[in-house]
Order: sequence, then C-alpha cells, then structure tokens
Amino acid sequence: MGKIRVGIVGYGNLGRGVELAIAQNTDIELVGIFTRREPSTIKPVFNTPVYKDEECFKMTDKIDVLLLCGGSANDLAHQSPKFGEAFNIVDSFDNHAEINNHFDKVDASAKKGKKVAVISVGWDPGLFSLNRIVASSVLTDSKTITFWGKGVSQGHSDAIRRVDGVKDGKQYTIPSESVLKSVRNGDIKEFSTREKHTRECFVVLKNDTPSERERVEKEIKTMPNYFEPYDTTVNFITQEELDANHSGLPHGGFVICSGKTGKDSTQVYEFSLKLDSNPEFTASVMVAYARAAYRLEKEGVSGAKTIFDIAPSYISQKSAKELRGELL
Amino acid sequence: MGKIRVGIVGYGNLGRGVELAIAQNTDIELVGIFTRREPSTIKPVFNTPVYKDEECFKMTDKIDVLLLCGGSANDLAHQSPKFGEAFNIVDSFDNHAEINNHFDKVDASAKKGKKVAVISVGWDPGLFSLNRIVASSVLTDSKTITFWGKGVSQGHSDAIRRVDGVKDGKQYTIPSESVLKSVRNGDIKEFSTREKHTRECFVVLKNDTPSERERVEKEIKTMPNYFEPYDTTVNFITQEELDANHSGLPHGGFVICSGKTGKDSTQVYEFSLKLDSNPEFTASVMVAYARAAYRLEKEGVSGAKTIFDIAPSYISQKSAKELRGELL
Repeated sequence: MGKIRVGIVGYGNLGRGVELAIAQNTDIELVGIFTRREPSTIKPVFNTPVYKDEECFKMTDKIDVLLLCGGSANDLAHQSPKFGEAFNIVDSFDNHAEINNHFDKVDASAKKGKKVAVISVGWDPGLFSLNRIVASSVLTDSKTITFWGKGVSQGHSDAIRRVDGVKDGKQYTIPSESVLKSVRNGDIKEFSTREKHTRECFVVLKNDTPSERERVEKEIKTMPNYFEPYDTTVNFITQEELDANHSGLPHGGFVICSGKTGKDSTQVYEFSLKLDSNPEFTASVMVAYARAAYRLEKEGVSGAKTIFDIAPSYISQKSAKELRGELL
Repeated sequence: MGKIRVGIVGYGNLGRGVELAIAQNTDIELVGIFTRREPSTIKPVFNTPVYKDEECFKMTDKIDVLLLCGGSANDLAHQSPKFGEAFNIVDSFDNHAEINNHFDKVDASAKKGKKVAVISVGWDPGLFSLNRIVASSVLTDSKTITFWGKGVSQGHSDAIRRVDGVKDGKQYTIPSESVLKSVRNGDIKEFSTREKHTRECFVVLKNDTPSERERVEKEIKTMPNYFEPYDTTVNFITQEELDANHSGLPHGGFVICSGKTGKDSTQVYEFSLKLDSNPEFTASVMVAYARAAYRLEKEGVSGAKTIFDIAPSYISQKSAKELRGELL
C-alpha cells in the first residue's frame, strides 16, 4: 500500500500545524505546500516543496487529498468549491451560520468532479459537533451546552484583522465559571450565548487615533455571527504588547449534556479539550479526516461530507479487526 | 414515515431500560417483550405485550429491530447469532476479550439473513470505544487511558451471580484518584489495570459457611478477564444488607487521552459519564443504534457492525440538513 499523498493550501498557523501533523502519521506523505504568496517567502518547518497555488492543478495525478488551511470568511468560501472539483479536500470551515450554504456549494463541485470533500472538520465544528450529535441522540430528554475557552479563537482573531484599519489582533473566548458549574450539577435551563461566554479582543491599529478606536470598536462589536451576539470587550494595545503577551494559541472547551432517563435518573455526559495549540490540534483532526476522504473516494463515494457522515473507522490507520480487538 | 418497530429480548434491568428509553423516542415503537420465562410473570413498566421468546420468529414481518438485553457470558454468545439471522439486532456484548470472536459469528448469521447486527453497543464498549478511536486517530503520539467508576458493573455482578453457591451479588469498580489526577496533568506513562482500579464485590451466599466463603472468594478472584487481572475484594453480606445498601445501579468513568503535537504542545482530550442509572443509559445508546440498524438494512447493508462502522448521522432523528444547521 502506497502512502496517502497530501497537499497543503495556505500556509499560516493551520497550514504549519498540518505540516507538523503529517510528520506524525506514517501512512501519509506531504507532496507540497501551495500558496498565493511568492513561494520563496514561505519557510516550511521541514524540507517541504512550496508552489504557487494554481500549480496544484498540474499535479492532480500526484495528490490524493488537498488540505485547505485558509480562513472561512475570505478563503474557504470560494477555495473549497474550486479545489473540491479537482481534488478530494478537507477544510475547517467554521462559520456555523453559513455551513449549510457552504455544504451545498462544495457538494455540487465535488459531485461534478467525482471527489470527496470533508468540510468543517476540526474541534468546533468537528469533535464538539460529534459529541453534540451523540449526546443528544442518546439522551433525547436533555440539554447539550457548549462552552469555549479560555482560549484564542483563530476565526474570530482573523475576523478582527480583516476590519479596515486593524494592523493586528487577538481574541480570547472565556467561559463563565458559574454557568459551567451549574450545568455540571444537572441544571439544564437555557443559557444565552451572552451568559455563557464573553469575548475579549486585543487590537493593534494601523493609525491609533480616538476616532479610529471608536469606529473599529463599533465595527467589531456589531459584526454578525462573530461578535454581535456576545458581550465583547475591545482593548487597544501596541504591537509590542501583543507580541509579548498574546503570542500563544491555547484553546479548549466543554460539551456538557445533562439528561433524564427512566423515572428520574440524571445522566451527565461531558467532553472537553485542553489544548496548548489550537491550530496544531485542528490540523491533527484534518489529517485524520484526510484518510477518510481518500478511502471514501476509493469506494466510489463523491460529494461533500461532514463529521456526521463518516464512520469512525475511516479515520484510523488500524484494520477493523485490530480496532475491535484493541479499542472496542 | 412509519415508526421503527422494535422488540426486546430479555427483561432484566437492561430490558426495562430499553422499554423506558423507547418511550422517549417518538420515531420508535415497542412491539413486545420476548422472554424465556413464563410471560405472565413479567411486569412491564408500560402496557407492553409479553411473549415467549420463540414467538418472535412468527412475527418477522412485524418487527424491524430486536434489542437483545441478556448478559454476554451466557445469553448473547448464542442469542445474537440466532436472532441475528432473522432480524436486525442490537446487542451490548461486553466481554472485550471475546469481541472479535462474537463479531465473526454474528457477522456470518447476519449476512446469511441479509440483516444488520450492531454489536457491543452501550458506553463501554460503545461511547468509550468511540472516544478511544477518535482520540488515538487524531493524536497519534499519545496515550489513551480508560477509568471506570465508581459504579456497579452489571457484567461483573452478573458474573458473580453465576458462581455456584452465590445467591446474589453486586460489584463496584473504583478508579484510583491519584492515577486519574496524574493522567489529567499529562503524565502518559503506562498504568497496569491493577494500578488504575480496584474491584469490590458484595456477595450473598446460599449457604454461608467458612469453607463456602473460601471456595467462592477464590472462584471469583481467579475468574479470567472479569476479575483475575484486578485487585479484587470480596465481602460476604446478608440479602437484607445487599438490598438496603446496594440496590442502585450508578456508574460512570473517564476516557482521557494526553498527546503531543508540534514541538512540544500538550493536548488533553477527556470524555466522561456520570450516570445515575447504568442500565438506563446503556439502553438509551442501544435504542439510538436500533435506528442505525434499521436504516442500514434499508440501504441494502448486511452483516455485523460496531460503533466504529456507523456514521453518527444514522443514530439521530434529525435530517442531514438539520444536523448541519443545528449541531455542526
């Protein structure tokens, strides 16, 4: 059996995470990094060849799966349908409100090209979604609550940095300790997104003036889906402060489902992640699902798939018999 | 769309749990309970008809899925291959060391009958297995450790009660707090099963004599797979004490995976269950997977399946589009 040949499109934190993750998977090899930037400006971790992104279309016979490592807002919305027609792809599209829209577009391209596109893979959407579907399907009289953080959200930091006049920025999502405690104790009332978390932004402006601060703060706080539904704090700091105090990318969170069965049995289901590096973990999930994309296409499947549509055995290197013997 | 018509084979704690769980699922209806005992001796929770077990073979056109609620040791080993040829089935076979053997036998029957048999479904094997495969596939440089308890293990209590001379018994599995703490802190060394847990048995003898105590204690402690690999304590008590202090069936546990990515990022993945009623929760998982057995057969699939082989969407009542919109 040859190795699964993978390409990376986009080389930021996530792309670098994928490069590192592939080195931990013996059945997958990295063919190259594809970038919109000038290839010579990219410094990979290993000796990975770097190409102009369009070059990949000349290498369709050398690549089994492309891992798309751009942001949801400006990259994946058009990249996934485009690359998804010529290649099996995996993306980490994380704009929850737009997922069905994205799915439909990618599904059409992938079906046209007879390829498999695994979308919205990572930890949320991704492993958290998996736990939400399992918990709520098993415990039908229940409430499932998701908490994020404390940690840096790449998608939200990305969204800040796209605001006109912003030079750099980081966003922390912080779960409410008191709500977390009450949910663990079986209190399954509805909490608003505002009650569960706050969002804290650290922003460096290109031109730091009072009127610019006012405008940018308003633009961030009113951004639909990303910030509008939350209590958001915006702090303006210098680039030096940002680099010194906010350079890591830790994250994590909790999916907690509290349900009732029988006469009055309380059943509490909890999933959590505590991540030193959010992009490295997201990348590791994407690489596992690259295995699924490859295998599904080999079986004649085509179209867009999410974590809900893929049997767990597809992401493991082990055979069905080994899995039953060692992990079941 | 008609409802999925389900039958229960075996009416102990698990069978009663299934009866209760079906009442919480609007797309599933319960056709009847099938028992080896005299049907008139069974007292269902609801108005469920009770039949002699062999009667179900005259009702193959009225039942979509049979949920087998017997014990692994003496019931499922022969029941699953037998019923699995005529019906889609779900079982909770939990003798880990025998799973591949059981799978092969059930697979042959189910393929012969063109039916789907979902085996070893519950929380361990079951949801814990799901978390073990996901964690270890995503974090390849990692160690995944499972802890059980504190709680009553039905399989192990069952095993005690099958020992000659035993009138009644309960077994508690207890995780080691210190090992749990060190694993959460990223200490991923290998722990022996003895180090991670102890097993505590409370046993009522038919004939409580010193020689009988000695014989039964030895027989329990040396039982392969169930007790032999563990530090086991056996306490002999009266039926009154057992009924007063050990009548509940709480359980739970933890699957913790600690891994490394990139240069030195520690990524900690944790899944846990805190269950007031182990059989009601196991039953709830089985009912969700009955939905999968039914749908897979409708798609022309046949043979034995485990939780590894089934895409999560098959266990949900929601459509693919609803799932993407609400849970992804």
